Amino acid sequence: MLAVQIDSGKIDVVEVPKPRPKIGHALLRLRLAGICNTDVELLRGYYRFSGIPGHEFVADVVQSGNPQLIGKRVVGDINLACGRCKYCRKGLGRHCPNRTVLGIVRHPGAFAEYLTLPEENLHLLPSSIPDEHAVFTEPIAAACEILEQVRFSEAASIAVLGDGKLGLLIAQVLALHGLPVNLFGRNAGKLEIVKPLGIKTHLVTRENPSLPVAEYPYVVDATGSALGFASAMRMIQPRGTLVMKSTVSEPLVFDTAPLIVNEITLVGSRCGLFGPAIKLLKTGQLILDPMIEHKAQLSEAADAFGRAQEPGVLKLLLEP
Amino acid sequence: MLAVQIDSGKIDVVEVPKPRPKIGHALLRLRLAGICNTDVELLRGYYRFSGIPGHEFVADVVQSGNPQLIGKRVVGDINLACGRCKYCRKGLGRHCPNRTVLGIVRHPGAFAEYLTLPEENLHLLPSSIPDEHAVFTEPIAAACEILEQVRFSEAASIAVLGDGKLGLLIAQVLALHGLPVNLFGRNAGKLEIVKPLGIKTHLVTRENPSLPVAEYPYVVDATGSALGFASAMRMIQPRGTLVMKSTVSEPLVFDTAPLIVNEITLVGSRCGLFGPAIKLLKTGQLILDPMIEHKAQLSEAADAFGRAQEPGVLKLLLEP
Repeated sequence: MLAVQIDSGKIDVVEVPKPRPKIGHALLRLRLAGICNTDVELLRGYYRFSGIPGHEFVADVVQSGNPQLIGKRVVGDINLACGRCKYCRKGLGRHCPNRTVLGIVRHPGAFAEYLTLPEENLHLLPSSIPDEHAVFTEPIAAACEILEQVRFSEAASIAVLGDGKLGLLIAQVLALHGLPVNLFGRNAGKLEIVKPLGIKTHLVTRENPSLPVAEYPYVVDATGSALGFASAMRMIQPRGTLVMKSTVSEPLVFDTAPLIVNEITLVGSRCGLFGPAIKLLKTGQLILDPMIEHKAQLSEAADAFGRAQEPGVLKLLLEP
Repeated sequence: MLAVQIDSGKIDVVEVPKPRPKIGHALLRLRLAGICNTDVELLRGYYRFSGIPGHEFVADVVQSGNPQLIGKRVVGDINLACGRCKYCRKGLGRHCPNRTVLGIVRHPGAFAEYLTLPEENLHLLPSSIPDEHAVFTEPIAAACEILEQVRFSEAASIAVLGDGKLGLLIAQVLALHGLPVNLFGRNAGKLEIVKPLGIKTHLVTRENPSLPVAEYPYVVDATGSALGFASAMRMIQPRGTLVMKSTVSEPLVFDTAPLIVNEITLVGSRCGLFGPAIKLLKTGQLILDPMIEHKAQLSEAADAFGRAQEPGVLKLLLEP
């Protein structure tokens, strides 16, 4: 089968053997996959990754010990947990210390014609959700994770920083949850995408970099930059909660005084549950079509990865 | 009156006019004061401080618009809040943006024969609490603040890092709250102080620096060092809560990946309410006597500040 392969910072599309599912795992045939910023980071050496990347996907089950799954269109949880440790027993398999992670940690990813996942990781998709929306399930789940972690007081306004793909999804998820969202970004066109959901957008330009100080009880930083984090720390109210949603690859030099003096709570947030994400997709209220930059063939993955690294680019999809 | 004066990194004891209380403020005559690490930081230039430092004190009310206060022995909240802003209205005067702070921000401190504070800041002391214990009210309140901010699940074990004055108080407050506390420190003698409260102590030496990894659902960092914070980040479990209790004066270079991947919550924590602290002092269960290093005269403050900066030194007290 055709598969994208990352090795020592290089990306290729190669012919490899079709994977053989273990007992309890299903064999899936890819329908559509999405390139995430994490994939780009993997190419740049994050996790010293080598192998097949890809963790955002929609696929058909072609082989499974459970006959009811065969032929079904699915998405899948990316964490392959042991099911026995104290985290797994609390339903926190995404923190299982023994986990592998689809396309990230020791489990071949979704940028291939076929992939495998444990059957328990799979979620059936209702026919009302098209592939082009379902492929966003994983990042929508990551956005929904904020609602699992933070108890927002009603009517408390939230600032979301960053109009990248994740920032746009977070703003939408929080707004659809009934919260008043302010989205700060550098790209007028991207900010425009989410306006129909009643999100107040704020264009931050070099000419107008001014941001409100100590204004918001909740700030979500989805910029992935040290500058963005510093802005978030300035915008947060005393006793406020700052959710860090994207890792900052540059080292962050951090002044602890404001955090302590203003008693800020900083919440690291990563993967989420697929259930709430699929439920939200089913409502049809998320604005996803304008978030798709381009759909490429798997064989064109190297080019697509190049394009995914250009500034301001939205979601790149790969189809087999 | 005699007062300690810090100016441009120098400390002197000087004769200054007795302060005149504003309307609504009481005039207090010092009984006993304590030197806090923050005072040492002020001498080193923190907040570009100049003036009379000191915020840990016990005093007698000698002048007040409220005759019932006169002659009473009191401690006092160190934040002078406006009483009108949205923080004050929520009972969070310690986050009032208009506040001054006794001996720290634009209000002369307690290292003087007399000081003033708003009457509403004062708390009467029951006679059962001796001055030598009451002088710890402010740092005990700071330790109690953790219980205001974090909802500990019962039986979840806590690691407190740092056997300095604040670390010892935090360990005691949490243990007296019924929580299983593990105190990690570098000084066997200091660790010994809190053992009678059932606190499990762990001596961390150069020869034996090994600390458990991903072990604790709650970690309180009271080390005030970048190394201590790094240890705290390693010791915390995924989805755990790390309370930062002392500012780190050196810049902290911070890898955001573990915070986000493990979904750690970082809680900055500062001043607390005096009510719970006095209640705890009244029980007589806190072990405070061995935490007193030396009681000096106000006139010997420069020497006492010198001694307070020596490694391993416990609480230095000043009496008029």
